[in-house]
Amino acid sequence: MTRILGFDPGLATLGYGVIDIEGKRPIMRDFGVIQTPAHQPLGERLCTIYQDVHTLLEQWQPQQVAAEKLFFYRMANTITVAQARGVLLLVLAQKGLPLVEFAPPVVKQTLTGYGKADKQAVQQAVAQELALASIPRPDDAADALAVALTAWVQMALA
Amino acid sequence: MTRILGFDPGLATLGYGVIDIEGKRPIMRDFGVIQTPAHQPLGERLCTIYQDVHTLLEQWQPQQVAAEKLFFYRMANTITVAQARGVLLLVLAQKGLPLVEFAPPVVKQTLTGYGKADKQAVQQAVAQELALASIPRPDDAADALAVALTAWVQMALA
Repeated sequence: MTRILGFDPGLATLGYGVIDIEGKRPIMRDFGVIQTPAHQPLGERLCTIYQDVHTLLEQWQPQQVAAEKLFFYRMANTITVAQARGVLLLVLAQKGLPLVEFAPPVVKQTLTGYGKADKQAVQQAVAQELALASIPRPDDAADALAVALTAWVQMALA
Repeated sequence: MTRILGFDPGLATLGYGVIDIEGKRPIMRDFGVIQTPAHQPLGERLCTIYQDVHTLLEQWQPQQVAAEKLFFYRMANTITVAQARGVLLLVLAQKGLPLVEFAPPVVKQTLTGYGKADKQAVQQAVAQELALASIPRPDDAADALAVALTAWVQMALA
């Protein structure tokens, strides 16, 4: 059995999703988001991410961690997200965990066969692949499950 | 007595400088750099920064921490430095330490009276203000002492 923890990095909302690969099938174990309120000082928000990511890793003990590779559109957003990503990379290194990153088009291509698929198509593929009755909410958690599934397919983890 | 720890944030080289304000004069206590080799994985480099900044704070127990506010020129550099800055902000928040940031023109104006002063003029002002026999090396350490002195002057710390 291989356990994969997927992340969709962000400061305000950091999505995560846990899947187990048993035999040839992925099974969803957990998903959710780490949220930090915008009114808090940046340092406190980074502390929350630091602690909550540590807690997730201790709780789920994944063999592989995957994250959505950051695409940067606006400078202000870039700096904010990069600071949160720095803390995520720090915690993974502290735990000695390998990280793989996949750009959004790779995630889309892997799950739907089409690199420019819309968000809804990707989310439906996630629900179908994991045999879920409904699409995981919020979007960041669904994205984290998508990147975990991408790691499974792309890395032939089983 | 107020102790100020100044930082010049960076990933490859993070400068620091420690000054004590005793009476009305600043006294240099320590300066140096935290360096992380470019060939190391990013996570390991962030671990080094995390540990070394913690060690500095425990060793010097500053009352105030000051950092040079980041100016971003190129996108690639921005992301790299922002990740290191995220770890610095995390450690300060874990220690409950207040951070003030000063943009480079403010540091230059404060130390030389001219907001567009060149690096050499600022470094000479640092050496003179702290009664040092020579200019502190490397540049990042001198910059860190400059920002600590700026915090002293701008915040009327004594």
